[in-house]
Amino acid sequence: MPHPLSGLAPLRIGIAGLGTVGGGTLRLLQANAELIATRAGRPMLVTAVSARDRQRARGLDVSDLRWHDDPMGLADDPDVDVVVELIGGSEGPARRLVETALSRGRPVVTANKALIAVHGASLASAAERAGVALAFEAAVAGGIPVIKALREGLAADRLVRIGGILNGTCNYILTQMRETGRSFAAVLEEAQALGYAEADPSTDVDGIDTAHKLAILAALAFGRPVDFDSVHVEGIRGVGAADIAFATELGYRIKLLGIARRTGEGVETRVHPCLVPHSAPIARVEGVFNAVVAEGEFVGRLMLEGRGAGAGPTATAVVADLIDIARGSLVPAWGASSGSLSTLTSVPMSACRGSYYLRLEVRDRPGVIAEITAVLRDCGVSLKSMLQHGQAAGAGPDESVPIVLVTHETREQAMQEVVQCIAGLDVVVAGPTMIRIEAG
Amino acid sequence: MPHPLSGLAPLRIGIAGLGTVGGGTLRLLQANAELIATRAGRPMLVTAVSARDRQRARGLDVSDLRWHDDPMGLADDPDVDVVVELIGGSEGPARRLVETALSRGRPVVTANKALIAVHGASLASAAERAGVALAFEAAVAGGIPVIKALREGLAADRLVRIGGILNGTCNYILTQMRETGRSFAAVLEEAQALGYAEADPSTDVDGIDTAHKLAILAALAFGRPVDFDSVHVEGIRGVGAADIAFATELGYRIKLLGIARRTGEGVETRVHPCLVPHSAPIARVEGVFNAVVAEGEFVGRLMLEGRGAGAGPTATAVVADLIDIARGSLVPAWGASSGSLSTLTSVPMSACRGSYYLRLEVRDRPGVIAEITAVLRDCGVSLKSMLQHGQAAGAGPDESVPIVLVTHETREQAMQEVVQCIAGLDVVVAGPTMIRIEAG
Repeated sequence: MPHPLSGLAPLRIGIAGLGTVGGGTLRLLQANAELIATRAGRPMLVTAVSARDRQRARGLDVSDLRWHDDPMGLADDPDVDVVVELIGGSEGPARRLVETALSRGRPVVTANKALIAVHGASLASAAERAGVALAFEAAVAGGIPVIKALREGLAADRLVRIGGILNGTCNYILTQMRETGRSFAAVLEEAQALGYAEADPSTDVDGIDTAHKLAILAALAFGRPVDFDSVHVEGIRGVGAADIAFATELGYRIKLLGIARRTGEGVETRVHPCLVPHSAPIARVEGVFNAVVAEGEFVGRLMLEGRGAGAGPTATAVVADLIDIARGSLVPAWGASSGSLSTLTSVPMSACRGSYYLRLEVRDRPGVIAEITAVLRDCGVSLKSMLQHGQAAGAGPDESVPIVLVTHETREQAMQEVVQCIAGLDVVVAGPTMIRIEAG
Repeated sequence: MPHPLSGLAPLRIGIAGLGTVGGGTLRLLQANAELIATRAGRPMLVTAVSARDRQRARGLDVSDLRWHDDPMGLADDPDVDVVVELIGGSEGPARRLVETALSRGRPVVTANKALIAVHGASLASAAERAGVALAFEAAVAGGIPVIKALREGLAADRLVRIGGILNGTCNYILTQMRETGRSFAAVLEEAQALGYAEADPSTDVDGIDTAHKLAILAALAFGRPVDFDSVHVEGIRGVGAADIAFATELGYRIKLLGIARRTGEGVETRVHPCLVPHSAPIARVEGVFNAVVAEGEFVGRLMLEGRGAGAGPTATAVVADLIDIARGSLVPAWGASSGSLSTLTSVPMSACRGSYYLRLEVRDRPGVIAEITAVLRDCGVSLKSMLQHGQAAGAGPDESVPIVLVTHETREQAMQEVVQCIAGLDVVVAGPTMIRIEAG
C-alpha cells in the first residue's frame, strides 16, 4: 500500500556540505522518511547536494542526487525548494549561499552558529523581505530544541537570564581534568587523539564557539539584534589542575559558561570559566553534554540538558526546522520582526559584578598575607575567605606556597586592578589566576 | 507614540475559569502586553470572561470585559476569536465548551490535562475538521515547553522513552520525607496547611494527575492516539519513612515517575514510585520542580527541568499557545493528522520488566531468610542483594526486624507472585512493600 502522503508534493531539499552534520541529516531523512513525512504532512525529498570533493567516501549513496560542485548552484536549482547550509564559517561560500538563497525567495536552514552570530541581523531582514524562513535550531546546543523553546515556548515571558554550558569539547576537557587530576594540555592532547577535539582546538577552547552560541541565545531571549562583538570571551587554557583541585575543596566545579543577563543598565554577555557551586544543577552536567538555563519573570528557572553536538542530535535539529517549513510555519528568525527588536544596550565587562576566586603562588615569608590583603582593601574589594595550605615538609624557607582568595561581590573593574597590583608584588611568584564565581 | 502594532487587528480572547491559572493568564497578558504583541505580530485582547462567581474578589479588574455566567457563551460570543478553557475536569462544562468552540470553528487553548488525556483523540479530530488549533502546552509540566519540544523540536526522531517527574506535590512530599525523616501522613498534612497540596489530595498523591500528563506525553512521543485507560497507576501513599531511609542507604532516591517506553512488544505506560540511582540527573530534581526525560534514537537523552505548576509558569504556556495562534501557526494537536497516527499496542503492566526493591518485617527466627529466598527461587526471580540490620538491643527473641531485598531484572508478573507468596508466609509480620527500580 502506498503511504497516504506519497501523492502530496514533496518538499525538495538541497544540502550544501556533507560533513558530519550533512551526512547525519541525509541518514536521518532516509531512516525516518515515513515518520517525518507523517509529521510534516508531506514527503521530504533531497534532490541536490554540494560538497568539496565528489569522490570522497562518505558511506552515503548520493548517485541519485544532482551534484553541484559550486554550492551557489543550489540557490538557483529549479528542483530545490529549501536550501540547507552545512558548510560552516561566517564568511565565504556559506554566507554567499545563504544570502543568495534568501534573495531568490528560498527558505534556508542552517547549523552555522558563526554565520548567524555575526550576520544574523541582516540575514533575518533579508528573510523577512522575501517572506521566507531563516531557521537555525541546529546552531545552538545540537539536539536540545532551545531556539524553539526561547522563540516560541517562552515567547510570553520577559527573560532575565540565559546561558549555560554550550561547548561539549570544553566541558569534556574540564570534566576529565577533574576526574583524573591531569593538566589542560594533557587532557586536550588525549581529546584530540579520541576525536573529541579538533587538531586546531582554538574555536572551542578559547571560547569562540560558546560566544557565537551565547550571542544567538541572548538575541532571542532579550529580543534585540544579535551582537557578537559585544560578547566578552575567555577560554579555558588558563585553568590549571590546581584550580580544579582548589575548586573541589571549596565546594565548586569549574565550567566554561556563556552568560547573558539583563540588569538595570542593559545586557551583559560574557563567556569565561566559572566556579559553580557543586549543588547547582548545571554543576552536574558533565562530559560532552550541554545545558541551557533560562530564567524568566513569570516562568522562573528552566534547564534544558542534552547532547550539544554530533551527527545524530544536530541532524534532528536540522530536520525539525525542515518540518516546520514543510508545515508552513513562519516565525520571524529572532522571534519578532527586525523593526520591532529592542534597543537594550550592552553592558561592558568592566561594569559587571560578581564574586571572584584568585589563586597565586607567594614566597613563604612573614607579612605576605598582609601585603596581599592590603591590595584588596585599597581597591575596595572585600575578602570572603582564604585558603592556604602549609608548604611541603623539607621545603626551604624561601620556597613558594599557593594561596587562594575568595572575594565578596564586587565590580569587575576593581578586580582587574587587584589582579594587576597583586601580579606586581615582589612576594608573588606566579599568578594570580582569576576565575569568576557564578550561582549556576 | 502609539505602538507600531496597535493598528493591527487584535486576537480577541475569551477566558473560561478565573482561578489560579486564569488569573495568572490575565496578569501576564497585561504585564507583558507590548512584548507579547511584538512577538505575536499583533495585539492580544481579552474581551470576555466566565467564572462561577462574578462577585469573588480576585485582585483583577474585569469590569471592562464581557461577563458570561455560562462559559458556553464564550463559544458564541461574536467578539471572541479564541477560547481559553481553564475550568478543569474531563467532563462537564469544560468538555462541552471545548467541543462547542471547536464545532463553531474557534481555536481552543486549554490547560486541562484530564480533558486532553481522556478525550484528546476525538477533540483533535474535531479541531482538524474545523481547521483550527487545539493547543495544550499548559496541560503538562507548566512552564516547561515540553509539548512543543516533542511535537515540533523532536519531530524528526523516533523516541524510545519519555517520562519523568510530572507532579510537583508528590515530589515536594517525597523530598520533605527524605529531608526530615517524617511519615507520608505528617508531610502531607503540612503540605496541605502550606497550600502545596489540596484538601482532597487524591488526584495528586494517587498518581492520577501524573497519569493524565504521561498519557499526553506518550501519545506525542510515539505518535499514537492518546490512551489514558492503558496507563498503570500507583501513587505514593504506600511509601514509608523506612523505604526512604533504606533507599538512601542503598544509593537511591524515591521519585514518583511517569514512564512510557517503546519496546519490541509495544508501548508501556506506567506511573508508580521508583528507586532512582542517586547519580541519575532526575534524582536531583527536588521539591516542586518537574523534569521530563526524553530519549530518541538520533537525539539521545534530553532532560527538561523547571516549574511544573503555579500561576506564572502555567500562564506562560497558555500565552505561548495564544502567540502561536496569533502568528497563524497550525500544527496538528498530536503532531500528525489523526488518520496517520500509529497503531502501536499497549503493553500490560504484567509484561513489563525491571528490577525490584522489597521491604518486609519478619520474625527474627532461624530459617526466615531461607524461607523467603525459596519463594524467589520458586518464582524464578534472582536476588541481587539483601540488607538486614540487627534488631534493637534488648528486643525479645520473637520481635520483628526489617529486611530489604533487591532483585535482578525480572518480569513484573513473577514479582507479583513473589509479593503474594511472601505476604502469606507465617514469619512475615508486615509487607512486603514493593518499589520498582529505574535507571532514571
